[in-house]
Amino acid sequence: MIEVDYRFPAGIDAEKQAKTIAVGQTVGTWDARFAHREEAFRDRLGKVVSIKTQSDGSNIATIAFPRANVEGDIASLLTMIFGKYSMAGVGKILAVRLPEDYGIRPKFGIAGIRNRLQVGDRPLVMAIFKPALGLNAEDHAGILQEVASAGLDIIKDDEILGDLEVAPTSDRLRACRRVLDTIYQETGRTVLYAVNVTGRADRLLERSRYLVRNGANALLLNVLTYGFSVLEALAADPEIDIPIFAHPAFAGAMCAAPDFGLSYAVVLGTLMARAGADAVLYPAHYGSLPFSAAEEAQIREELRSRGVFPVPSAGIHPGIVPQALADYGNDVILNAGTGIMDHPDGAAAGVRAFFEAIDLSTPGQPFNLDRIPPSPLRVALEKWGG
Amino acid sequence: MIEVDYRFPAGIDAEKQAKTIAVGQTVGTWDARFAHREEAFRDRLGKVVSIKTQSDGSNIATIAFPRANVEGDIASLLTMIFGKYSMAGVGKILAVRLPEDYGIRPKFGIAGIRNRLQVGDRPLVMAIFKPALGLNAEDHAGILQEVASAGLDIIKDDEILGDLEVAPTSDRLRACRRVLDTIYQETGRTVLYAVNVTGRADRLLERSRYLVRNGANALLLNVLTYGFSVLEALAADPEIDIPIFAHPAFAGAMCAAPDFGLSYAVVLGTLMARAGADAVLYPAHYGSLPFSAAEEAQIREELRSRGVFPVPSAGIHPGIVPQALADYGNDVILNAGTGIMDHPDGAAAGVRAFFEAIDLSTPGQPFNLDRIPPSPLRVALEKWGG
Repeated sequence: MIEVDYRFPAGIDAEKQAKTIAVGQTVGTWDARFAHREEAFRDRLGKVVSIKTQSDGSNIATIAFPRANVEGDIASLLTMIFGKYSMAGVGKILAVRLPEDYGIRPKFGIAGIRNRLQVGDRPLVMAIFKPALGLNAEDHAGILQEVASAGLDIIKDDEILGDLEVAPTSDRLRACRRVLDTIYQETGRTVLYAVNVTGRADRLLERSRYLVRNGANALLLNVLTYGFSVLEALAADPEIDIPIFAHPAFAGAMCAAPDFGLSYAVVLGTLMARAGADAVLYPAHYGSLPFSAAEEAQIREELRSRGVFPVPSAGIHPGIVPQALADYGNDVILNAGTGIMDHPDGAAAGVRAFFEAIDLSTPGQPFNLDRIPPSPLRVALEKWGG
Repeated sequence: MIEVDYRFPAGIDAEKQAKTIAVGQTVGTWDARFAHREEAFRDRLGKVVSIKTQSDGSNIATIAFPRANVEGDIASLLTMIFGKYSMAGVGKILAVRLPEDYGIRPKFGIAGIRNRLQVGDRPLVMAIFKPALGLNAEDHAGILQEVASAGLDIIKDDEILGDLEVAPTSDRLRACRRVLDTIYQETGRTVLYAVNVTGRADRLLERSRYLVRNGANALLLNVLTYGFSVLEALAADPEIDIPIFAHPAFAGAMCAAPDFGLSYAVVLGTLMARAGADAVLYPAHYGSLPFSAAEEAQIREELRSRGVFPVPSAGIHPGIVPQALADYGNDVILNAGTGIMDHPDGAAAGVRAFFEAIDLSTPGQPFNLDRIPPSPLRVALEKWGG
């Protein structure tokens, strides 16, 4: 069975809506002409499990759907649980509980990414190429050289940087691959570069294989604008033997409204994890986007429960590291854009500031600026606070 | 240039938000280190074109984005205009204006579908297999025989019917193809059957080609749960030489909230048309879903402006035909599920009732039941009103 929690605001007849969903999103109605199929219909009907009134007058209806109605993927699941009904009015999906074996397991996840990097018990540090648009491939290589030499674990393209004339995807990979090889030869360290893969579905899948053949060691995918079915195809493809980083771009379009759409925990947690992502980016609650600690915790737990790496992002800087360690523990990738690239002493200092922050942190205890010697960390704390 | 209208509710600093979008969704900020790329950055920045205060205190900000930032498809467009920003708070996209040659033209659209059916100057009539789940392939063939003999133009699977054990997609096609062939041999009429194509992206594309090779003459795609990139791949594929019907399932998750997400006109009109759909289903304002006539008109016009067939759906029955003719004119596909299948005298009578309604209608004048002789139409009007 697949269980889904829908919340209806006060004033909406939750029982009626729940019945509409259980019947209308499965078999629909039938008459005497199809009496001979009665059993098949009954087996495929949804069932209202419970309706619970909350203190604010809203109701949470739990509906159970037969697993046999869907194909084990995200698209057929979404079509069933919210397809036509999403257009019917007010109601938000808060949680989706799936059978243990539903969906695709990540090929790498936390253990596999740690293994590729040979980094055990600490948070990983990830940067984003900035500015997002307008740099050419050599500029990217130059930035990568700086941050990779300074000890960075992972870098990714900005999500809006596609296959553009100024810096075609394959040029970026070629230029950056050289840097990655040099770093490996000199230090034995692997640095992952998550290349943003784009294009209509057939080309995106083909291009991903091309990138792997040409040395890509990680991919970035805007799952919600390209489609969960595309992530699933990449995750299931044995040729794509590199980690896939899922970006949350567009999630707000389906999650930001209080009474419509789906919760962030479902979209960025449950569904991303079941579609085969190895690591999933989402807004950190300390950051620049309006996220609550509770919402973030739900996403993180959904991901970790399937071995997927949580990547809190947006507004991350070295000053939040002590609190992040307390809140997140070690199995997390701290992803910073300007928090690394805009360090007053340059991007390499931005990376060093993060590692100093990790080394010097007592989880939960803010830094005392007076006790920090002159260092990249101190400069970062002076700029961004902590 | 690509122009996008964002609406911000009263109380939100629209100017600040607009600047955040224009800069944050394109280049971002840069410093002296990248002074040598200044020109490239400036060429890629978004620009705030105007901010207009509405009578309700909301503001509509128009932002122009360089076309060179995106790849001519829907996914890179959505990532740019709403990717990260969608998670930033309150703001809804009302309109997207694209260069004339942006996107993919439909292979068939209104003219091509009419040509395949050899039906000129009247609305087309489309039915949906019901009940949605639990019938086997032979049941489908039996229903098709009834409705196709009665003169139906098009039938489609229910959108929640995937490739399920009870009625595998290829079995449904095989059973129904026999009926379509018989109808053609006996009457010379082509009837389209839009087969619901599902699965992760690679399999969906492969299966679509398989279905075409095995006689499918139309496809149905849940574009919003599988991804616009999948529709684009089908639309661009020369082997898929049959019309693609786009289903709006899940649209409410991104369109139903008043102050979040995108308007239905953008998602079901602009984006579907630019992604290569031949016909697009959307809720009719007479129907069972809460749509306004204005919203429906916007979708319809967006689709027709690119030659795409509008398919008003949900709650359509013969009684609304006179008003539909007045509101829609002829270039429309009237799509009825229960409005055909649940006719008291059976599905064939349901189809006949629609054609009688089209023949007997004076656009804009409701039927006078006293003047309708005993007929399938009369029975339909007695059941559903009109």
